Amino acid sequence: MNHLPAFIYEPTIRAALAEDLGRAGDLTSNAIIDADAQGTVALVSREDGVVAGADCAVLAWKLVDPAIEVKIDISDGETVTPGATIGTASGSMRGLLTGERVALNFLGHLSGVATGTATIARAIAHTKAKVCETRKTIPGLRALQKAAVLAGGGSNHRFGLDDAVLIKDNHVAAAGGITNAVMKAKERIGHMVKVEVEVDTLEQLRELLELDGVDAVLLDNMTNPQLAEAVELVAGRLITEASGRITPETAKGIAETGVDLLSVGWLTHSVQVLDIGLDYR
Amino acid sequence: MNHLPAFIYEPTIRAALAEDLGRAGDLTSNAIIDADAQGTVALVSREDGVVAGADCAVLAWKLVDPAIEVKIDISDGETVTPGATIGTASGSMRGLLTGERVALNFLGHLSGVATGTATIARAIAHTKAKVCETRKTIPGLRALQKAAVLAGGGSNHRFGLDDAVLIKDNHVAAAGGITNAVMKAKERIGHMVKVEVEVDTLEQLRELLELDGVDAVLLDNMTNPQLAEAVELVAGRLITEASGRITPETAKGIAETGVDLLSVGWLTHSVQVLDIGLDYR
Amino acid sequence: MNHLPAFIYEPTIRAALAEDLGRAGDLTSNAIIDADAQGTVALVSREDGVVAGADCAVLAWKLVDPAIEVKIDISDGETVTPGATIGTASGSMRGLLTGERVALNFLGHLSGVATGTATIARAIAHTKAKVCETRKTIPGLRALQKAAVLAGGGSNHRFGLDDAVLIKDNHVAAAGGITNAVMKAKERIGHMVKVEVEVDTLEQLRELLELDGVDAVLLDNMTNPQLAEAVELVAGRLITEASGRITPETAKGIAETGVDLLSVGWLTHSVQVLDIGLDYR
Amino acid sequence: MNHLPAFIYEPTIRAALAEDLGRAGDLTSNAIIDADAQGTVALVSREDGVVAGADCAVLAWKLVDPAIEVKIDISDGETVTPGATIGTASGSMRGLLTGERVALNFLGHLSGVATGTATIARAIAHTKAKVCETRKTIPGLRALQKAAVLAGGGSNHRFGLDDAVLIKDNHVAAAGGITNAVMKAKERIGHMVKVEVEVDTLEQLRELLELDGVDAVLLDNMTNPQLAEAVELVAGRLITEASGRITPETAKGIAETGVDLLSVGWLTHSVQVLDIGLDYR
Amino acid sequence: MNHLPAFIYEPTIRAALAEDLGRAGDLTSNAIIDADAQGTVALVSREDGVVAGADCAVLAWKLVDPAIEVKIDISDGETVTPGATIGTASGSMRGLLTGERVALNFLGHLSGVATGTATIARAIAHTKAKVCETRKTIPGLRALQKAAVLAGGGSNHRFGLDDAVLIKDNHVAAAGGITNAVMKAKERIGHMVKVEVEVDTLEQLRELLELDGVDAVLLDNMTNPQLAEAVELVAGRLITEASGRITPETAKGIAETGVDLLSVGWLTHSVQVLDIGLDYR
Amino acid sequence: MNHLPAFIYEPTIRAALAEDLGRAGDLTSNAIIDADAQGTVALVSREDGVVAGADCAVLAWKLVDPAIEVKIDISDGETVTPGATIGTASGSMRGLLTGERVALNFLGHLSGVATGTATIARAIAHTKAKVCETRKTIPGLRALQKAAVLAGGGSNHRFGLDDAVLIKDNHVAAAGGITNAVMKAKERIGHMVKVEVEVDTLEQLRELLELDGVDAVLLDNMTNPQLAEAVELVAGRLITEASGRITPETAKGIAETGVDLLSVGWLTHSVQVLDIGLDYR
Repeated sequence: MNHLPAFIYEPTIRAALAEDLGRAGDLTSNAIIDADAQGTVALVSREDGVVAGADCAVLAWKLVDPAIEVKIDISDGETVTPGATIGTASGSMRGLLTGERVALNFLGHLSGVATGTATIARAIAHTKAKVCETRKTIPGLRALQKAAVLAGGGSNHRFGLDDAVLIKDNHVAAAGGITNAVMKAKERIGHMVKVEVEVDTLEQLRELLELDGVDAVLLDNMTNPQLAEAVELVAGRLITEASGRITPETAKGIAETGVDLLSVGWLTHSVQVLDIGLDYR
Repeated sequence: MNHLPAFIYEPTIRAALAEDLGRAGDLTSNAIIDADAQGTVALVSREDGVVAGADCAVLAWKLVDPAIEVKIDISDGETVTPGATIGTASGSMRGLLTGERVALNFLGHLSGVATGTATIARAIAHTKAKVCETRKTIPGLRALQKAAVLAGGGSNHRFGLDDAVLIKDNHVAAAGGITNAVMKAKERIGHMVKVEVEVDTLEQLRELLELDGVDAVLLDNMTNPQLAEAVELVAGRLITEASGRITPETAKGIAETGVDLLSVGWLTHSVQVLDIGLDYR
Repeated sequence: MNHLPAFIYEPTIRAALAEDLGRAGDLTSNAIIDADAQGTVALVSREDGVVAGADCAVLAWKLVDPAIEVKIDISDGETVTPGATIGTASGSMRGLLTGERVALNFLGHLSGVATGTATIARAIAHTKAKVCETRKTIPGLRALQKAAVLAGGGSNHRFGLDDAVLIKDNHVAAAGGITNAVMKAKERIGHMVKVEVEVDTLEQLRELLELDGVDAVLLDNMTNPQLAEAVELVAGRLITEASGRITPETAKGIAETGVDLLSVGWLTHSVQVLDIGLDYR
Repeated sequence: MNHLPAFIYEPTIRAALAEDLGRAGDLTSNAIIDADAQGTVALVSREDGVVAGADCAVLAWKLVDPAIEVKIDISDGETVTPGATIGTASGSMRGLLTGERVALNFLGHLSGVATGTATIARAIAHTKAKVCETRKTIPGLRALQKAAVLAGGGSNHRFGLDDAVLIKDNHVAAAGGITNAVMKAKERIGHMVKVEVEVDTLEQLRELLELDGVDAVLLDNMTNPQLAEAVELVAGRLITEASGRITPETAKGIAETGVDLLSVGWLTHSVQVLDIGLDYR
Repeated sequence: MNHLPAFIYEPTIRAALAEDLGRAGDLTSNAIIDADAQGTVALVSREDGVVAGADCAVLAWKLVDPAIEVKIDISDGETVTPGATIGTASGSMRGLLTGERVALNFLGHLSGVATGTATIARAIAHTKAKVCETRKTIPGLRALQKAAVLAGGGSNHRFGLDDAVLIKDNHVAAAGGITNAVMKAKERIGHMVKVEVEVDTLEQLRELLELDGVDAVLLDNMTNPQLAEAVELVAGRLITEASGRITPETAKGIAETGVDLLSVGWLTHSVQVLDIGLDYR
Repeated sequence: MNHLPAFIYEPTIRAALAEDLGRAGDLTSNAIIDADAQGTVALVSREDGVVAGADCAVLAWKLVDPAIEVKIDISDGETVTPGATIGTASGSMRGLLTGERVALNFLGHLSGVATGTATIARAIAHTKAKVCETRKTIPGLRALQKAAVLAGGGSNHRFGLDDAVLIKDNHVAAAGGITNAVMKAKERIGHMVKVEVEVDTLEQLRELLELDGVDAVLLDNMTNPQLAEAVELVAGRLITEASGRITPETAKGIAETGVDLLSVGWLTHSVQVLDIGLDYR
């Protein structure tokens, strides 16, 4: 997360620690581990993947005990293989054990996002297309998940409802057509706000291409031939985004239609954790 | 979540809305949809599963616009099939569109947890065993995820480091053996705190069975024959919990060894969203 | 603020009330006014202007006492003349007196923003240009001030550092030129993020016009003839924004150069309150 | 703000940073500036004025990046002339650019308050009178604005509704006269709470002077001859405060009537920012 | 607390509920009580005392379940005898049981403060003296405890370090004497801030009486004859406050010396709870 | 509190400081004490007792001024006699004076809890019984009060409604008997949750002893002979807890009946502060 100042995600880490330590702290470690016992632990990947969230793990331990020293060897965006040591933490054994689960929960989840993203990114690396996430994120983790998508080699879609316009079918229906919807939007938004419109058919796309002030088109659930035809119709005048059940298997074909972006919900809504464990040394 | 007073999870919903609406709210809907347009939307499942988090969806809309009325037809813990209407929301179209994504993000994620849990619960329903989650939860969502595990027919493990003792290998190592670790723990914890000990071998289990004051044993990564032997050794004196890469396929065999509990990390750390969409009526 | 759900600005109102009521509440009213005394007060403008923040005033009173009824007659964006009644509040006299100052502080400040904006907007109404604010806002009030700019007939610039790219002289210097700066930016940002570049000279503008992927240009502190020449050079390929000590007197001339936008710092950083008082009835 | 412990205003700075950095941080600087680029910037005044809020600027940068070093050369309460360097900040260029606007927004606004205060303070320096602010402050900034009034050579009025009693016309009306209002107040408030009463006429003042337990009188919107007569009537028994459209031009004459205080709403409600810029070195 | 708007103490009630309900809510009631079971409970005093905090109890239940109806029969400041019903709550049995402890913890503690205060107030009722509390309050409960002192018939001392000046021995020592300390204070504080000075001897009091601008004197740990002499010396020029181990037994004699106030630390720092129980009907 | 990471109780300390310093900080010290005056103060006990909360005092001063150095000589759980120096703080005199009251309020209150606990603990030290607190805690201070009970030699009961089941008379009544209540509870709670049941009579106890899955029994308000008979009946199968108006005088006799625990409400609800003062050196 090294492009984000820590004060942005510190409240998220604090909340996660509060959730795990509750009112009484780590009963087990406090009862069993001597207060002055020291140790070193290593964050070790158990599988192939891409790291994200290392700074969250660091901060989790630092908040539990500021005297713990954490050294990151493999940073956000770098790949790991089974057995790779992502970093090490040294200090009070109680503190290391107390912070372990929260540190791993962030690191595993965010590395899972990065790894999923990288799977698609690699599949389409020979094309000009990029993979991006959607707003189908885990509540509370949007900023961190989006940073993890970048770490995995992806690109970010809009961050929320307030930083870009995306006109969907319900907006179109309510406005009485694409043309009306776009005109209303352009009339009322600021000059630094981009406009994307979702279309389901090439007919809708043709209507859209008549309009000024649109930046991108979301081609929803089209077949590859439809996508290819859409790209040809657009002819570079709009950014083209394909969406709809994109998998590591289908991504290559979709990207080869010439679209600019593949947006993938499961990158953030159905994350497979990256298995990272803690080895005590 | 109907056993949780809403004030417990309201801050989580508010944070998710703040994250999605940012500083400027829903640019698209505010620009395109008339302020006085009214509508009704239905939460419709696109696949088989178990519902959880319906109250979160309700609250998301209510916070966006208290005048929106939400009616839930299929409550937490009930099953859905493709096309089933979980509930409907009526009111301002702007409010419905603004709250839609946050409502769905909670509902889909938590129903995903419940559905995954139910998959295991059904596989072991013919045994006395129950399925439970671990502390490998999504940061910030522990209370809600655990409620979803209940909705899916599971049972809850401890909620954090502070409400029960779980002695793991590192505690045992630091204390110089299981016996020492248990004795230290019993000396220092309150009388309402249960104690569970993780063992990797039957030899460790035998040492454990000599000790007073232990409530449960976590049998980590054992084969089914080992589990069966462990159950026999324990002979009802401890609650027995099996852990280690439990899947819908392996769960049956594990449960049939006679253990009391199967604890499953992926229920909460690698959640497959339940596909629930919004139909405008 | 009626396009913003109240939950977005409610914390701001609560903080302002907490700041005014402190630990002990309204000592004066509680000592002097009977607990059951009822009354009605009117929000009356003492001068010409444009209203903004009426919903904030409503919420201030509602938070002090939910039983107070507030009726708004002149909504955000509407003009007032001296003596005009913006709205009335009825209920407990204690509550009315306790909430008065916070209600007026929001209403006066935000109406001041709207009124200042309207002054420029009227001066340039015969051109295609719009007036917008900058990020020079009062700490803590950005979302509300930007809503007030809309109420005053203005348009919104970006909301923060995270929703659009604005390349300034220091970025250009650090990157070694405009071309490099733009290329780096385009490489790393998402497809829904617009890019604006600040230029001080027509020479810089010419370099900029060679580049792809720029959406807007900020023409900083140029004379009107320079602006006119810049507009001609741009020839509609970029949105043109003029900035630099724009006043109600200079705005007309600047807008007539053909620029699309006039951005004005003082709209939000040096706000002249709109004088609105409370009459007891 | 050096008489205020930083923990009091730190949440205000954090909120302002959060408002500017949003979910994604500084897109522009992160894309264009190298992560390891270092630099030094100077806070330079563009006009004459009095500094306030230097500690807020320091804290803004420190929160963005604790490694940034800030050195203040001209502290709160000291005067600046055009070109004067108030302080310098050194460290990561990204951090400097990211924190710049928030640092300047606080510094410019609060120095504006101090400068406005100083204008009045200088005009009345030959009298015993002091200038003070009112409760017409910018929501969320009261403590900082009041500290800035001190920096400008002013004195502070009450901080809120809870630390002093100020009986206004509506209280008098509700109580059935000044005498009743004062008696009720004295009966119910603590012994460390001062009482001030607003009067519009000398007749009201004469009634007030009959009463015990009043500490100060607010002479509202009186002419200078009336003020002089009021001062004579009071004869040192009460603190006398003049209010009503006090400007740098009128202040001298008002102060020369012998009143103790001039209270001025625009010091805090209609602040003219002090123009302070950032020079990169 | 009916002079305090609920939004002031609502966060305190929420925090107390969060502390009691934790992550999982009321395990016992949720497991055993039917979700639709209804009931009525009565808040019944088990001893003589004075009620305070009834509104806190109401709010505790309302936050747990807004459908619970609470009716208060004996309000803050009224006396109770054993068996008296302070109020009744009706609604969901689960909600009643869940909120019971928090409701009682506030009501018992604050009624304890009020009852302790009333004990002193009654003992000195035949004198002009009043009893007040100190800043030795329970962290987090100052505003509520001070409201309870009022309910018990006491008067409030300053609320914190920021609403009045109290010059103690360490300030005097640091300033080089009482005269210097008072002069420095008067020079730098606002006109609505009262000044009290602590003296240990009559000699210090005589020095103090030479000074202008002091409002009150704290006569610390003096004997009754010393207090009487001090009162005579002061001769009404200052408010006189006696402090130092005041008990229900000693209060009468102290008050009869003619002092205006008795300040009592234990009213708030060593509170004896008022025994109030819940009867199920 | 040294088993609790400071981030758990830091918000409580911040809230207490905010409550004492308000909007303007320490008016008295800021006016009278030179900004650069340095000093050293000692925390000195005025009576016999047991220390708790030393870390809270440290943190209070550190938050006021991070440059203050605090050295603790007598830690939580250690005894003090009159005149004993618990610790010393050195640094800015302003900071020392500003933080003094909050530091002492925590230290005195929590040491009061520890001292009260120790009184009972010593009285029963010759038995196997332990003393524990209840949920009758001061709102907002539960975690700290419970840590203080440990410091005083006590044991902790459950922390809230969510970490253990305690079946009381109302639950029994609602469920239609002890057997039903226990069965419902066991059916629905997790395997790491203990179950305790309150009984008023030996008859109820006999019914309870027939049931599986109960961990502890609360023997409410029984006479010592009844307690002794209960202990005999239980015969080690359950943990036995006696409750009901336990005092330093009665504790010995109760403990000698053979019960495992004495739970005492007044340890936390009616705390007698430990008199600790500050000596300036």
